[in-house]
Amino acid sequence: MLNQARKEFSIVKGIAPNVNQDALFNDKRKVFLFGSPSYTNMGDQAIAYAEEKFIENCFPYYEYIEIMDYATDEGIELVKKIINADDIVCFTGGGNLGSLYVDIEEDRRKVIESFKDYRTIVFPQSAFFEDTEEGRAEKKKSQEAYNQNPNLTLVAREKQTLEILKDTFQANVLYTPDMVLSLSIEPRDLEREGVLFVLRADKEKVTEESFVSDLMNLVGKDNLVERTDTVLSEVDVIDYADREDQLLKMFDKIGSKKLIITDRLHAMIFSIITKTPCLVFGNSYGKAKHSYNDWLHELSFIEYTDNKELNGLPSIIEKLQSAEPNKIDVREDFQVLKDFFRG
Amino acid sequence: MLNQARKEFSIVKGIAPNVNQDALFNDKRKVFLFGSPSYTNMGDQAIAYAEEKFIENCFPYYEYIEIMDYATDEGIELVKKIINADDIVCFTGGGNLGSLYVDIEEDRRKVIESFKDYRTIVFPQSAFFEDTEEGRAEKKKSQEAYNQNPNLTLVAREKQTLEILKDTFQANVLYTPDMVLSLSIEPRDLEREGVLFVLRADKEKVTEESFVSDLMNLVGKDNLVERTDTVLSEVDVIDYADREDQLLKMFDKIGSKKLIITDRLHAMIFSIITKTPCLVFGNSYGKAKHSYNDWLHELSFIEYTDNKELNGLPSIIEKLQSAEPNKIDVREDFQVLKDFFRG
Repeated sequence: MLNQARKEFSIVKGIAPNVNQDALFNDKRKVFLFGSPSYTNMGDQAIAYAEEKFIENCFPYYEYIEIMDYATDEGIELVKKIINADDIVCFTGGGNLGSLYVDIEEDRRKVIESFKDYRTIVFPQSAFFEDTEEGRAEKKKSQEAYNQNPNLTLVAREKQTLEILKDTFQANVLYTPDMVLSLSIEPRDLEREGVLFVLRADKEKVTEESFVSDLMNLVGKDNLVERTDTVLSEVDVIDYADREDQLLKMFDKIGSKKLIITDRLHAMIFSIITKTPCLVFGNSYGKAKHSYNDWLHELSFIEYTDNKELNGLPSIIEKLQSAEPNKIDVREDFQVLKDFFRG
Repeated sequence: MLNQARKEFSIVKGIAPNVNQDALFNDKRKVFLFGSPSYTNMGDQAIAYAEEKFIENCFPYYEYIEIMDYATDEGIELVKKIINADDIVCFTGGGNLGSLYVDIEEDRRKVIESFKDYRTIVFPQSAFFEDTEEGRAEKKKSQEAYNQNPNLTLVAREKQTLEILKDTFQANVLYTPDMVLSLSIEPRDLEREGVLFVLRADKEKVTEESFVSDLMNLVGKDNLVERTDTVLSEVDVIDYADREDQLLKMFDKIGSKKLIITDRLHAMIFSIITKTPCLVFGNSYGKAKHSYNDWLHELSFIEYTDNKELNGLPSIIEKLQSAEPNKIDVREDFQVLKDFFRG
């Protein structure tokens, strides 16, 4: 069986890209990560990066094995052949649990169903099922899949999601910050210039273009202004091997600005890591808002606002830019997740 | 020059064992670690492991390159050829700065002298020069070597060493805990049995054998008792590739005991990591004692004692074993070291 598995997996790209492939067959306890992103959302890339560091730093005695999103089906087949009773199956975290990203939700269902006899965990997520016929149908499918697995743990990264997960699924539910906040990266000291708008162009976008252009004009009076997104458009795919480089580039991009204005949760988190003042607006269902309120509101140089009145904003921006960047310590808040993996 | 260097280093074992050798020639900022231990003292191995994790986690944008102790001379020659103005040269931490381990002290002098035009740092150390003619002669040699380097930073891991370093050298001096305390390893849950004595057999040993055997008899009345050292005798060399495995084995050894009795600083630190009750006696110049008093005395399940009266010890041991293992957070105490590497 093992030899057959060896033969099979040797031809599938995207399985175990983070280790020497022999690692699949050693006698260490395994932690499998499914859903490792190949798409160019740098928030999700940063989450996968942080998940790897978390397991490597806290549990060096485990073998951590990633399966890229595009290899989910082949990965399930291979892992079924080699998995042992005390191994752990994970699906990556993010803000995609629910009805908005059905392709990812379908992969998550498959993984959760396939490994119902094994300890299974979904890393910290935001959950959102639309209150529409389609949204309710997706919710039902997810309930049917998730509830087949009596060994499932879900992790919420905001209180709002915690309540949704508890109300929707039978799984055990934990509560921690977004995984990217577990990183220990020290920011590079870069010269700062200009203001960067990091704005969604997806279905979660609620910031009006007219408001954006008014704000860009206002801020642009005294500053160089640029606009971008944390979803890269200059590349189509970010494979495991390119993840760290792309992420460090993104940190440098954020960390070389005087101010970030964004509706992206991870543009806010990258601002925290690089100690860059950041003004945050919301998305369609409060991802950034709730993370800010639940974990991050004590940060002097980061502020969430629902205020769309232009004349209120300059004073907020000035306050953020003159604040001495402070620190919050959320590392202890990951202890419940550490306890899960120790168990 | 670069091509010549490439050719040369490709034949030297022990240079850059932690990276693909092309890493020596990329355009990233480099951090070179000299003195990476190949000897079997697991405390020093754990320090090198922690140094690597520290740089990788906090500064993923640097290229971290180790040079094994046995390749110091060749390493100096190679690094001289490839080093850039803003690269950083490090010598590993430990408890060997001074006159007790002259071979290591000689390597440290060579490295500090050779890179006097570059930012140079000695990771957290304990310093001790014997107050003998030989000790004074070694101190003078070290002063002459270290003081040639105007870009040198030394890091003390106890206040006692901080004072010695300030009084002895012109270098900038920082103060942090031992590097191993910067690790984030979560202990494996192991069944615990027996008491392990982890005792020096070297020139720093001051615990009398008669006291040891009396204590072993006393403790052995109710427990399985074993004796070992954190310096392995079953292997002669631990190369970079074997470091993590050997270290995890040592953690399991300590973490599967009900109690550790030791005169080794790192047996105490491994006990902290694995949440194993630990009673600590001193070495010749207070390494364990001062780390305990300066950083670790709030730990409920660890106690340092100079008490060599047998009848006082059972009550201490009982207290340690019944204590709920608590945590101390020394991570913030490494900030000065992070600031050094950011600069």
